[in-house]
Amino acid sequence: MTNHYIREGDNADLTELRKLCTFDTEEMAAFLNNDKIELNRKRQIQDFVAKHPVLGNPKPYYFMTRKEKMENSQRKAMHALELAPQIIDVHSKMDVYYYNDSIHNHDGHPFALHNSMFMPCLEAQADEEQLAEWLPIAKNNQVVGTYCQTEMGHGTNLRKLESTATFDEKTDEFVINSPTITSTKFWPGNLGKNANICIFAAQLYTKGKCFGTNNFIIQIRDFTTHEPLPGVEVGDIGPKLGYACTDNGFLRLSNIRIPRRHMLMRFSKVDKEGNFTKPLHDKISYTTMLHVRSVLISFFGNILGRALTIAIRYSGIRRQGEIDNPKKEVQVLDYTTQKYRLFIPLSRAFAYIVLGRQCTKMYQNLLLDLKNGNADAMTDMHEILCGVKAVCTYECCCLGVEQARLACGGHGYSDASGLPYIYTTHVPGLTYEGENTVMLLQCASGVMKSAALALAGERSKLSKITKYLAEPIQTKSTISTDCPTTQQYIDCLEVNAKVQILKTYKQYASLLKSGMNKKRAMNECGIDMTKCARRHTKQFVAKTFAETVADYQEGETKEVLSQILELYLANEVTESPSGMILSGFVNGAQLDIVKKRVKILLELIKPNAVSIVDSFDFTDNQLMSVLGRRDGHVYENLLKFAQSSELNETHVLPSQHYIQKVTSSKL
Amino acid sequence: MTNHYIREGDNADLTELRKLCTFDTEEMAAFLNNDKIELNRKRQIQDFVAKHPVLGNPKPYYFMTRKEKMENSQRKAMHALELAPQIIDVHSKMDVYYYNDSIHNHDGHPFALHNSMFMPCLEAQADEEQLAEWLPIAKNNQVVGTYCQTEMGHGTNLRKLESTATFDEKTDEFVINSPTITSTKFWPGNLGKNANICIFAAQLYTKGKCFGTNNFIIQIRDFTTHEPLPGVEVGDIGPKLGYACTDNGFLRLSNIRIPRRHMLMRFSKVDKEGNFTKPLHDKISYTTMLHVRSVLISFFGNILGRALTIAIRYSGIRRQGEIDNPKKEVQVLDYTTQKYRLFIPLSRAFAYIVLGRQCTKMYQNLLLDLKNGNADAMTDMHEILCGVKAVCTYECCCLGVEQARLACGGHGYSDASGLPYIYTTHVPGLTYEGENTVMLLQCASGVMKSAALALAGERSKLSKITKYLAEPIQTKSTISTDCPTTQQYIDCLEVNAKVQILKTYKQYASLLKSGMNKKRAMNECGIDMTKCARRHTKQFVAKTFAETVADYQEGETKEVLSQILELYLANEVTESPSGMILSGFVNGAQLDIVKKRVKILLELIKPNAVSIVDSFDFTDNQLMSVLGRRDGHVYENLLKFAQSSELNETHVLPSQHYIQKVTSSKL
Ligand SMILES: Cc1cc2nc3c(=O)[nH]c(=O)nc-3n(C[C@H](O)[C@H](O)[C@H](O)COP(=O)(O)OP(=O)(O)OC[C@H]3O[C@@H](n4cnc5c(N)ncnc54)[C@H](O)[C@@H]3O)c2cc1C
Ligand SMILES: Cc1cc2nc3c(=O)[nH]c(=O)nc-3n(C[C@H](O)[C@H](O)[C@H](O)COP(=O)(O)OP(=O)(O)OC[C@H]3O[C@@H](n4cnc5c(N)ncnc54)[C@H](O)[C@@H]3O)c2cc1C
Repeated sequence: MTNHYIREGDNADLTELRKLCTFDTEEMAAFLNNDKIELNRKRQIQDFVAKHPVLGNPKPYYFMTRKEKMENSQRKAMHALELAPQIIDVHSKMDVYYYNDSIHNHDGHPFALHNSMFMPCLEAQADEEQLAEWLPIAKNNQVVGTYCQTEMGHGTNLRKLESTATFDEKTDEFVINSPTITSTKFWPGNLGKNANICIFAAQLYTKGKCFGTNNFIIQIRDFTTHEPLPGVEVGDIGPKLGYACTDNGFLRLSNIRIPRRHMLMRFSKVDKEGNFTKPLHDKISYTTMLHVRSVLISFFGNILGRALTIAIRYSGIRRQGEIDNPKKEVQVLDYTTQKYRLFIPLSRAFAYIVLGRQCTKMYQNLLLDLKNGNADAMTDMHEILCGVKAVCTYECCCLGVEQARLACGGHGYSDASGLPYIYTTHVPGLTYEGENTVMLLQCASGVMKSAALALAGERSKLSKITKYLAEPIQTKSTISTDCPTTQQYIDCLEVNAKVQILKTYKQYASLLKSGMNKKRAMNECGIDMTKCARRHTKQFVAKTFAETVADYQEGETKEVLSQILELYLANEVTESPSGMILSGFVNGAQLDIVKKRVKILLELIKPNAVSIVDSFDFTDNQLMSVLGRRDGHVYENLLKFAQSSELNETHVLPSQHYIQKVTSSKL
Repeated sequence: MTNHYIREGDNADLTELRKLCTFDTEEMAAFLNNDKIELNRKRQIQDFVAKHPVLGNPKPYYFMTRKEKMENSQRKAMHALELAPQIIDVHSKMDVYYYNDSIHNHDGHPFALHNSMFMPCLEAQADEEQLAEWLPIAKNNQVVGTYCQTEMGHGTNLRKLESTATFDEKTDEFVINSPTITSTKFWPGNLGKNANICIFAAQLYTKGKCFGTNNFIIQIRDFTTHEPLPGVEVGDIGPKLGYACTDNGFLRLSNIRIPRRHMLMRFSKVDKEGNFTKPLHDKISYTTMLHVRSVLISFFGNILGRALTIAIRYSGIRRQGEIDNPKKEVQVLDYTTQKYRLFIPLSRAFAYIVLGRQCTKMYQNLLLDLKNGNADAMTDMHEILCGVKAVCTYECCCLGVEQARLACGGHGYSDASGLPYIYTTHVPGLTYEGENTVMLLQCASGVMKSAALALAGERSKLSKITKYLAEPIQTKSTISTDCPTTQQYIDCLEVNAKVQILKTYKQYASLLKSGMNKKRAMNECGIDMTKCARRHTKQFVAKTFAETVADYQEGETKEVLSQILELYLANEVTESPSGMILSGFVNGAQLDIVKKRVKILLELIKPNAVSIVDSFDFTDNQLMSVLGRRDGHVYENLLKFAQSSELNETHVLPSQHYIQKVTSSKL
């Protein structure tokens, strides 16, 4: 079959590897980009952007200072909005996403939070009248919004946010305040410099009583001058590990008055008399979070795909050391350890891309339910998304991306590789939208309820996701041949989860029985709880991935997908098998079979590896990487990159005189 | 007992925690800083530096551009050299180290490579006459040196370096060349802008024959003007993940002529006639690497200590969520998961600080041996240091530092935390001085030889480090009470290593027997080989740590050290126990005992945690962290940090007009 990314004049090693391709990269690219139509649309948009230099960077991104980056992204944002109607449907979320993705780097742009948080939150939480008022001007970017939830003192425990919104019956207004230093809003993206309006979470007070956190629309800057309004102290929070293009901000409000109807009122309401009506479901205002978490799963799978595109291409080019022929150095991709380092993450990138799509479907269904007043699926979705969010971001943004970077040796540490950028930009995924450890504990807390039902024989009360907990435990894995089935792997992962969960539940239940409160008991079992959540999540990911591959049409692409799936499964089984072993479910010989499969699969995937990452279909422009260039011309461009370092503007640094004073003068 | 770091007006939570201290922080600080004398010396030097503002930064480090950082470090370096005689003995390595450590940040200064690589390499590899010539001017910083080994195309496989040094009998000179793009020297620190001289690794050609890689002293810049000499192309390699203050450089030489005696000749030699004499031991020129790797172990233990000082102090200040009292939020240090996240790395920091000292002693002994013509200990030292280097840097610079950062939630991502700086500065430790995967494979390769001897019953041929491989395997762990002994833990780790090693050896040996060459067989077993190396290393670290604690004088400090040691051991045993389980050495009940110990130890250590990290005795100046301040006044200073962001110089960014054009204008 064909790799369609081959061009004449490419690095010869890369071309050789691409020629080994056993599938059609166009079909795989369609799979990885949702479908053929979306793939083509993306390419059209990318082509358009490439043809308009005003949408590009005037100098290489890595050589810009933070101020230059901010200016550059504002400039590009303007041109982007002006040119948009020529190529995209500005009301199509997909179009807008691909358009911005082609123009801006991933560390932010002026409308990033407006599009990803402000608008979805508005759509979910404003009532019809409010939507009619705000949505049109939000969609046209006449206002630039952000989402202000986190405060300096509180990110996780939102119930203890300190900002206040006190209802003033006399004027039919809310009065907003930041009463303490720790109540300062801190971190919201685009808040520091770009946003002129925000959705603001505050404790709602009416008739002298507090009704908890609610969301309000607050204008913070003058629409004409962009100066902060009176009573508003707002600014950027300063340099960070990454995200140089995002003005994560701080915000302090003092006696800001807003109309009552600037409270988002689809679910909770305050009437003119100051009566509060509470929402149907007590976590209803978290829907935006569920949405964002769903979208992030595929997104981070793709991010890992970027890092691996770079590392796998480079590993086909990099020659280092000899194996059989002492005269000819091998490609580092020939080392088993290198394949292991890169293909395990590759299998995970696939797993999460697939999983994210399923989660987005779940979310769409949930929204429909909620509009019909039914919040049943909310808890279930919340629980599994907590686990998935934590495991996905850790494996993609932290482990996977760093392994890709480290696999490039020294050059991985240079900005030229593109990998420092990916890591520093996406590793906060482990923290924002729910800190990972907290996410695991929340997932586990839900799993404990399911375990209780399972042990009480209440199978029918369990959801599709947790039903396996109530099924009778097989006593022995049926793995016996050299090639376990998908089901046999999944059985292992289910048992591994079940053993951990039921054991932890017993411990937890006995603490409760001894009179301990729920939170303390959870904390006592904290370490085991995170394990429960991880294993529960992993069997869920595995099943979802397996179902998707099973449904795929027969052919060469499916064959490759099946190998990637099996590698994913086999590796998960070997990762922390002690639960399966201690419960007698698998023995050493069975584990050896699985380990051997891992090795075999690494070999099977190797000839296709470059073609697989090619099929993510990232452009050089997106990768911003000398090591990951499609054409493989790494070394000459690495030298060029070095030569253009800002420190090389002069042979001798202007401050060299300091050193000369104490060195050569002595000779 | 007393925590001596308490001051009036400190954050109350932190003071409370410090008051729980059960030991004397001065004694612990002496232990962690080698001894009382060294601790005091360090403090004297730090005080001196603090009193001289010219040795400080004119504005907060994180707010400087790269150019400002380079200028600042050159300026500080000048003042440092001028003031040095007032406080330090400039010939004492310890003094120089503490002095530079107090003045410069960790991402480099103009003499960093000169001190850490150029000088040690010179001392180890120059003969007496050469030492007499170069050492004095090197010690006085009259020349500024660096160490140029890595090329763009080769960092790991040094045998394939492409730079050439061809002996010209007629002039008694070597002619040095960079024949290809990939032969460009790439990465050496301080090479780009600061160094005027370097030790340069090149293939030595004489009489038409190549004699492999040797080291040469080459001047690259004019001592007076600092301009590159004719035939020298040199410069900075551009921006990187970190190390903004280091001018990692590239270097291309074209027909540079140097006197024959600029080849370092302690071990290999070329005489006037061009005859080459080879060194006693074929890896003799690697001694500098052994030295650096030894020093790095303690250093990285300390680095992890810095990150944990920040994260543990902040975890005592940060209140988030409730456990027992719904009205009072707990310190996040109260969460079991937070303790687990931070105290396991804490135990590792201690382990590596201790281990590094032992390795440095081993190195000193080796140097003496080598001077006496005995290279026996070299291989042994090389092998274990490979494993230790890989495991230590991974656990300290990558896992540990990132866990510390992530444990600070969102604020960990801000430069204000000081943690992004630590990560980006030290994570290349996984790559430089031997790429980690390669290190593990080299360690494993040595272990395989020992395994062969062990299986052949040649116990007497095994070194102290590998002897355990030949001892009869106990069949069952004797753990039976709630409190396992140090020896019982170590038995587990030995068995875990032994099972993995002997199993892998059998597989490897059978491949060799089938006719496969050694390198291919190693590669076939690559994944298992890295496991062998890791487990072998871990039992070595454990033993060394245990011996040191055992030797420590009785008292409160020893009690705390013993808890830290036990936490280290217990965690290692639970981390990947499947080998122990499958071999029948431990059962589920025994593992449960060990897991319970982990939990108990976390609780025992908690009241001392802040006092333990205080005892690393890092100053605020060293930590450069708002979250890790000794006084605990985090929030007001976080706001100040934010307010001073360069983007806040104006309320409205200068480029805001771009956005105004497309937004408010429409209203
Ligand atoms: C790049 C970036 C962008 C962001 N963008 C936005 C934005 O646009 N809008 C916005 O509102 N916010 C934003 N945030 C803030 C982000 O949502 C919070 O940082 C995040 O929710 C974590 O909360 P925290 O910082 O308070 O962490 P903390 O809760 O303080 O966590 C600190 C430590 O305590 C532990 N911990 C806390 N609670 C518990 C518990 N109950 N049980 C066990 N352990 C616990 C955590 O595991 C962690 O180890 C952003 C943050 C970053 C880094
Ligand atoms: C910040 C920094 C500072 C540095 N400072 C200096 C300096 O002062 N002087 C100097 O000379 N150099 C310096 N270096 C270079 C450094 O020593 C090399 O980068 C390092 O030795 C790794 O070599 P490499 O980059 O060629 O990696 P490669 O060898 O190309 O590694 C790439 C990948 O191939 C794999 N691989 C390579 N060989 C094998 C094998 N035999 N078996 C299995 N897998 C293999 C590796 O595991 C890795 O995954 C520095 C590097 C950095 C990042």
